[in-house]
Amino acid sequence: MSSLLLGIDFGGTKNAVALAKHGVAEWLDYRRQISSPTADAQSDINTVLELSHDLLSSHSGALLAIGVSFGGPVDFENGTVRCSYHRPGWSDFPLQEHLQNEFDVPVSIDNDANAGAIGEWYFGAGSNCNSLLYITVSTGIGGGWILNGNPYRGANSMAGEIGHIIVKPNGPKCACGKTGCLEALACGPAISRQAVARIEAESGSGEILRHLCRGNPGRLTAEMVSQAANNGDELAQNVLLEAASYLGLGIGQALTLMNPERVVLGGGVIKAGKTYWAEVRRAASEHSPPGIYVDIVPAHYTDEAPLWGAIALANHLLSSQE
Amino acid sequence: MSSLLLGIDFGGTKNAVALAKHGVAEWLDYRRQISSPTADAQSDINTVLELSHDLLSSHSGALLAIGVSFGGPVDFENGTVRCSYHRPGWSDFPLQEHLQNEFDVPVSIDNDANAGAIGEWYFGAGSNCNSLLYITVSTGIGGGWILNGNPYRGANSMAGEIGHIIVKPNGPKCACGKTGCLEALACGPAISRQAVARIEAESGSGEILRHLCRGNPGRLTAEMVSQAANNGDELAQNVLLEAASYLGLGIGQALTLMNPERVVLGGGVIKAGKTYWAEVRRAASEHSPPGIYVDIVPAHYTDEAPLWGAIALANHLLSSQE
Repeated sequence: MSSLLLGIDFGGTKNAVALAKHGVAEWLDYRRQISSPTADAQSDINTVLELSHDLLSSHSGALLAIGVSFGGPVDFENGTVRCSYHRPGWSDFPLQEHLQNEFDVPVSIDNDANAGAIGEWYFGAGSNCNSLLYITVSTGIGGGWILNGNPYRGANSMAGEIGHIIVKPNGPKCACGKTGCLEALACGPAISRQAVARIEAESGSGEILRHLCRGNPGRLTAEMVSQAANNGDELAQNVLLEAASYLGLGIGQALTLMNPERVVLGGGVIKAGKTYWAEVRRAASEHSPPGIYVDIVPAHYTDEAPLWGAIALANHLLSSQE
Repeated sequence: MSSLLLGIDFGGTKNAVALAKHGVAEWLDYRRQISSPTADAQSDINTVLELSHDLLSSHSGALLAIGVSFGGPVDFENGTVRCSYHRPGWSDFPLQEHLQNEFDVPVSIDNDANAGAIGEWYFGAGSNCNSLLYITVSTGIGGGWILNGNPYRGANSMAGEIGHIIVKPNGPKCACGKTGCLEALACGPAISRQAVARIEAESGSGEILRHLCRGNPGRLTAEMVSQAANNGDELAQNVLLEAASYLGLGIGQALTLMNPERVVLGGGVIKAGKTYWAEVRRAASEHSPPGIYVDIVPAHYTDEAPLWGAIALANHLLSSQE
């Protein structure tokens, strides 16, 4: 009989579950559901339970453990969700206990950035690394650490907040309340904001970009900026290069402090192309101490990174118990 | 018969050795020798061997292990000194093997900042911490990490270089070649340089400071700046507050990335007084994400921190082997 692991992703826009065999980097099966705008913690959980039971009843085998990625801050030690920035009802929610009672197997829950780090470490671009920084560059910027051959989460499960190190003192205001955070300068929405500002300030430039958004800068996305840059739009190229520079500076700070073996970049923004990557690597190297060499590589998992991370969490939970 | 540990400090200006009982935070005995200006690796080693044999022959007991703090970059994995910034002859020197052959016991060598971290973790202000950032603010600024309940040194033994994270883009040139590093703005010589610059630019201010250096700004030290600040000299107070602000900003970046349980500050500069400490803590908190709380506390060991670290390294070596 197969030994099964269940991975659960409570994401910002959808919930998803996947079933995998213990120790194998491959899904047996998968279910997902887009969240409704009125969703709350209870409806998220109901959805996930329904999807999970449906999945489990379609496959024979013994469920050994569950890993959960949550798109928001988690208290790993206590197994509770701190809060959600997307939906009500999640504050201090004892998710680990809830799922343990439901399924009667051990459960490990973590935030999506840590789950992403553990997923890449187990199955992806960070396998065999003793130390690793994983960064996801998406609607926000998050990070997770593997150090001394183990996930490192910090004293309050708050380590890895590379999106909130300051890369431009007195720079733009960040959602966190500080100014000049990396996230405010290099995440997807920051890239589109910057492109809009330049289009509005520099009439006559950014022709390809204007065409892509059909003359309505309000529709601009970071993906359009990448597309325009790859098609030769100079304004878009400059916006992307600036974001890449700040990301490289942030990575350089992390390398200076931590000297990890590898940096793995995930999230949608890292699909921006060769010039973007070259600038990230150049700036990271410029801002690292001489003698620190590190590979900066693309994540193996991008679209379903949290779910792979959840499966890896379940694997790690079992191997830590052995 | 006593179980003895030998601690060795190859410092910038002196070499020192101490003998301690296994597991006890107390020296049995101690020897030191100021280095001559013409010293090199061989003369340093000869001095240390002579002091060590003298110490060992004065005490009965079995030597179990040796810990070494070296004032410069060390390759911990290979047990070699990378180089010395003070003396010739140290490049790629196999110090661990050399001492193992001489004394026929296990030897652990590390740089002085990591040794300082391990010393505070074993015996000092960081005992019982599962994660810890140690920072020494002196003629330079160095750092060492304890993470997941173990020393963390990084992929190339280069972690902890908090002195070289950038806190003022395009700021003053640092000895490392970059600009705006924390060290270039907050170490002892940076404080005295800044005081000299202000004294020369602002005639009529800094009266107490001018008196302390007897009208010769070239003689100014960071200690004099602290003394003048504590006696009410406004220029000195402003110089110190600025250095404290940058240190706090650097610490805030480290807390954002790593969320350690505690920060321990060592080195001569941290004796600068209450106002300095208050500003370090304020700036660190300002630049940390909300919800990350951390104690920033003075080191237990200041003057002989590397030697205590060396003894702690020897203790840790034995406990890792158990």
